[in-house]
Amino acid sequence: MTIGIDMMGGDYAPLEAVKGLSLYFQSTGTPASLLLLGDQTTIENLLDEEGISRDHLTIVGTEQVIDMDDSPTRALKEKPKSSIAVGFQLLASGKMDAFISAGNTGAMLVGTLFTIKALEGVIRPAISTIVPKVSGGSGILLDVGLNADCKPEQLNQFAIMGNVYAQLILGVEKPRVALINVGEEEGKGNLLAQSAYPLLKENKHIHFIGNIEGRDLLMDKADVMVCEGFTGNILLKMAESLYEVGRMRNLDDEFFNRFNFENYGGTPVLGVAKPVIIGHGISGSLAFSNMIKLAQLMLEKKVMEKMKEELS
Amino acid sequence: MTIGIDMMGGDYAPLEAVKGLSLYFQSTGTPASLLLLGDQTTIENLLDEEGISRDHLTIVGTEQVIDMDDSPTRALKEKPKSSIAVGFQLLASGKMDAFISAGNTGAMLVGTLFTIKALEGVIRPAISTIVPKVSGGSGILLDVGLNADCKPEQLNQFAIMGNVYAQLILGVEKPRVALINVGEEEGKGNLLAQSAYPLLKENKHIHFIGNIEGRDLLMDKADVMVCEGFTGNILLKMAESLYEVGRMRNLDDEFFNRFNFENYGGTPVLGVAKPVIIGHGISGSLAFSNMIKLAQLMLEKKVMEKMKEELS
Repeated sequence: MTIGIDMMGGDYAPLEAVKGLSLYFQSTGTPASLLLLGDQTTIENLLDEEGISRDHLTIVGTEQVIDMDDSPTRALKEKPKSSIAVGFQLLASGKMDAFISAGNTGAMLVGTLFTIKALEGVIRPAISTIVPKVSGGSGILLDVGLNADCKPEQLNQFAIMGNVYAQLILGVEKPRVALINVGEEEGKGNLLAQSAYPLLKENKHIHFIGNIEGRDLLMDKADVMVCEGFTGNILLKMAESLYEVGRMRNLDDEFFNRFNFENYGGTPVLGVAKPVIIGHGISGSLAFSNMIKLAQLMLEKKVMEKMKEELS
Repeated sequence: MTIGIDMMGGDYAPLEAVKGLSLYFQSTGTPASLLLLGDQTTIENLLDEEGISRDHLTIVGTEQVIDMDDSPTRALKEKPKSSIAVGFQLLASGKMDAFISAGNTGAMLVGTLFTIKALEGVIRPAISTIVPKVSGGSGILLDVGLNADCKPEQLNQFAIMGNVYAQLILGVEKPRVALINVGEEEGKGNLLAQSAYPLLKENKHIHFIGNIEGRDLLMDKADVMVCEGFTGNILLKMAESLYEVGRMRNLDDEFFNRFNFENYGGTPVLGVAKPVIIGHGISGSLAFSNMIKLAQLMLEKKVMEKMKEELS
């Protein structure tokens, strides 16, 4: 199992990425083989400074860096020797089994869609987020931004992807799958939600519990919460802001602290053949460490294979 | 100035409605003339019990009540002698200048749309909510549920309505109007947001500051926040749940306490000729008192007239 890490991606790269390796090795019993993409000399020096052994590590020197403000569509073509471009080449050719970056999100998405492509039958991949529940558990919300406009069939596929993720990664045996809507009754909502409801109801791959409302999002109502990527992205960012709100109000409350995205590391792209995990630009060492752990868990649990099976 | 109040609407009516009158009279210097709709004997008895003088009060006895689970479209026809149906008759005939109810929301909306109708040029009315900002101020978010599917022109009208409301009711001299979206740059978003952006940018009636994201909702970024009623309703209910979350976490934090809807009383319908304020089903006395104050302020500030002017 080989996991590739873009060491140049993110506002605090490569230092926080290297520190993330250190955290990862300290906190895992069975380290994966890691492939580090980035400037060879810089990475070597930082590994020495942090006293990290070279066991389980291979450095792949890359000469270019895609900046945060580079155009996602042009960047991959114009910078073929960048850590992100090389990463996708290695992922596509089978030299890596998963790829992690906190770099240019758009470039990561373009790379995913054009290099490793969607699973057969998948209309469009999705990205998801973990939503902490006030009762203690967690739910998964998707799509959170890859598909601002959706067809009903897409929401139905998101439900299947989220269901597999909740089972294998969140460890929920029989996830409660719900449609995010403006009311509880069938027939409520915009045209998309109205059309998606019957598809979800008929879907044999999931345990559909009906509509949930905005007030249910942080409560223990559903394990998988489905919506199009426009509403999902706005909800994701509002939820993330609760950590900031908690800090501004000096709350230091366990629940609000859970909205710190560093705990989750990054967002996996779902509906593709291999794990690609996209981190926040401001990822620190904890986020990097958690992204590596997530990629490893997704590979161990064969999440992508299971999704392929359920979606075909 | 005559404000009508449905004394039978809401889970705790008529007792909480009567207590709301008491609160209102205690906390206002210039009481409006109030028209109370509901069961004459019950109201008389409760007024006596609460020791409320009959100054400024007129009771209009009504014989029917629209229940919370009555079909909104049928209820008004089938119960023409209900407090809500009579209320809309008096509003339409000019015997009342504003109407308040915490009863069946659907019936209130149907009554508003079919009895007093939208202002000339308004595609569809909207409902809004006040969003507390962590920095201390407040913003207005609309639409929060009347229009689950919207055209770009509707969002442009919501912006104008919200702008007038922020100026006259929230007291913001030059409101910052923003489009809720998935990214800051022009061109981001779903088809609706992409098409609404240029309209908002060209709109001379407002000070448009561009897109805001989910993370900006509770921050001091914009005074008027515009979106379609699907996303808006989900955001509204998620925001309202923060009060409950704060209670569940025993926070007793001033900011989270501000999400208690009782503070705002109810949602005014915007884009119609007269103030109609729809309260939560679980409205208590504070909510009733605040709804009366809001209706009075909307009349005093001539909010509807100003909207008509700006929208034509």
